[in-house]
Amino acid sequence: MKVYFDNAATTRALPEVCDLMTNIYTQNYGNPSSVSIMGLEADNILKDSAKKLAPIINCGPEEIYFTSGGTESDNWAVFGTAKGYIRSGKHIITTKTEHPAILNPFKVLESEGWNVDYLDVDEKGYIDIKELSDTIRDDTVLVSIILINNETGTIQDAEKIGKAIKEKNKNTLFHLDAVQAFGKYKIDVKKWNVDMLSASGHKFNAPKGTGIFYMKKGLKVKPLLYGGGQQKNNRPGTENTAGAAAIAMAAEESYKDYDENTRKIRELKKHLFKGIKENISGVFINGDDFEKASPYVLNVGFENIRSEVLLHALEERSIFVSAGSACNSKKKVQSSVLEAMGKNDEQIQGSIRFSFSRFSTIEEADYVISALKEIVPVLRKFQRR
Amino acid sequence: MKVYFDNAATTRALPEVCDLMTNIYTQNYGNPSSVSIMGLEADNILKDSAKKLAPIINCGPEEIYFTSGGTESDNWAVFGTAKGYIRSGKHIITTKTEHPAILNPFKVLESEGWNVDYLDVDEKGYIDIKELSDTIRDDTVLVSIILINNETGTIQDAEKIGKAIKEKNKNTLFHLDAVQAFGKYKIDVKKWNVDMLSASGHKFNAPKGTGIFYMKKGLKVKPLLYGGGQQKNNRPGTENTAGAAAIAMAAEESYKDYDENTRKIRELKKHLFKGIKENISGVFINGDDFEKASPYVLNVGFENIRSEVLLHALEERSIFVSAGSACNSKKKVQSSVLEAMGKNDEQIQGSIRFSFSRFSTIEEADYVISALKEIVPVLRKFQRR
Repeated sequence: MKVYFDNAATTRALPEVCDLMTNIYTQNYGNPSSVSIMGLEADNILKDSAKKLAPIINCGPEEIYFTSGGTESDNWAVFGTAKGYIRSGKHIITTKTEHPAILNPFKVLESEGWNVDYLDVDEKGYIDIKELSDTIRDDTVLVSIILINNETGTIQDAEKIGKAIKEKNKNTLFHLDAVQAFGKYKIDVKKWNVDMLSASGHKFNAPKGTGIFYMKKGLKVKPLLYGGGQQKNNRPGTENTAGAAAIAMAAEESYKDYDENTRKIRELKKHLFKGIKENISGVFINGDDFEKASPYVLNVGFENIRSEVLLHALEERSIFVSAGSACNSKKKVQSSVLEAMGKNDEQIQGSIRFSFSRFSTIEEADYVISALKEIVPVLRKFQRR
Repeated sequence: MKVYFDNAATTRALPEVCDLMTNIYTQNYGNPSSVSIMGLEADNILKDSAKKLAPIINCGPEEIYFTSGGTESDNWAVFGTAKGYIRSGKHIITTKTEHPAILNPFKVLESEGWNVDYLDVDEKGYIDIKELSDTIRDDTVLVSIILINNETGTIQDAEKIGKAIKEKNKNTLFHLDAVQAFGKYKIDVKKWNVDMLSASGHKFNAPKGTGIFYMKKGLKVKPLLYGGGQQKNNRPGTENTAGAAAIAMAAEESYKDYDENTRKIRELKKHLFKGIKENISGVFINGDDFEKASPYVLNVGFENIRSEVLLHALEERSIFVSAGSACNSKKKVQSSVLEAMGKNDEQIQGSIRFSFSRFSTIEEADYVISALKEIVPVLRKFQRR
């Protein structure tokens, strides 16, 4: 049995999504900018894709842009706002538990003289909305918040955050990093006062190299790229028509049976943690409890365990999980997310992220439980100091 | 019969390239940043792809970066050099016949206070290398040149240009926009003293949304994107492994039988123009003659014809070509490339670009000739003022 519980790192693309891409790449391969019928067909693929995506987050299709992924969308939000709104102020706010695709652009701006506030989080990973409100100033041009944390599944209250931002300063833009949320959580940019939103295809069974950027109409956010005028001059470059169709199809699929999938995966998450807890001593959850956190991420701390050793022992049984996020895993940098949540070094070093897709099964969870039950006591024996 | 002679706008992806992508997206879908065997497999796909691409342009595999396309690569070269070398100077040079993905970033920098020189070209589209040399100053940090022009197929002498740049100022970086050249022309970055090079997958039968950026080791060029550290921190974002494999396979395929394909398509181009010339009066080539220009682009001016009308008449016979480049076609902006080559308004408005792939055939050319033979005299009759 192979168990892939690393879906927050990346997912398998749906075969029907790949078939659709192949059809477009080989049959409807016209350049959307061409004035011919082939160009028109290609342009219609883009328009139809935007029409499918827009209602998912409750925006207009003309507010959807196709990008190369979450990193580009996140960078666009930060650098585009900075360039477009520098005359309104040089103060920006984010949290200590963001993805590096937000944190690092913030650090770049900080090094260029911008005033940056990184909000603390509590032990479950939540920001204090009162503190956010107090941090917003007249010259605050951007607040960027991760909706669902990639390491812990903690869900920020985007609606309350949006309300607090606009009440304090109606000109401050609100960017939501929804890379781990889109496809697995209901989003409403209008209701939540969201001005920009980032999503990444490969997190919800669309292909890698595809992303979405929602940008509210009328903003002065500058483009990241300049070129041939595509996507209303906001994101030039020949559009990846097949990628757009793929991300739209995968998005629609991911919201079919949303309630049923959410319920099912929440049960799976509970089942997995219950199985771990009943069989292994000294374990704890990083993040909030089952009803409040994302059902798709379970971050478990194992006392007296080094996560990379556990990772490899699991891998020998064809179980794929992560310690921290994939994006940081190669650099051997300790999770700044868990650190911000007040975990100590030992707790962080013993933490493992199990992340699910709607295709994950109870049988897979059972297999993981039985593997952990055998592995953890052995590792603890050998690792004891 | 359907004839797609618009391959400079975009190409049909090879079915075997799409199959390879599907396999990777659905089977080897690991995140290259994961420490597991799945991550390792994914990382090997990237490494193998770079190893296949590097010898094509004579660089090291570690000098190949995967991007989302030509526009991103071009923007990276311009903005990355500007940010990384601003202490060395604020002077940059390009030509009047660049693609908008170079011209517009130059204009952005110009608006930010950079000194910019746009080199003239002669009636065939060539820059004067002596003039380039005279334009380079002590504070010139970048020269960006399009290797094969997208509208006319004019090939700049990159070797002489690279030599002239380095002789005048060894610190000036040389970026080559090879978007129309890669896959159809032999490139040698070492021999030509090229520091950076841009290429786009969808121009040589790889999928849209894939690009290459070559950057010589040791440069201080800054990234466009900041994030999770992927691609040596120079181009973060989860790598599109399938896209990388696709672009590598399509590149290898495109250089198989290179001499034979070049010869064949040059014959086709000659045949097409000969057929036009013999049957239609008042036609001329924009660009250099057959032995010197790219065999893959034939830009023909038709006197007393409005190109958009001709375009649609051809389309009714399932012949797909362009007036100018696809990237500009929707904006109804007159070709600045032909203008820079000294063509007058009427000449520009009557110009059509036929662009071929190695799969183009003489039979297709014959079909186009017979269509033009019928259409052009009729249009001229009705368009006469």
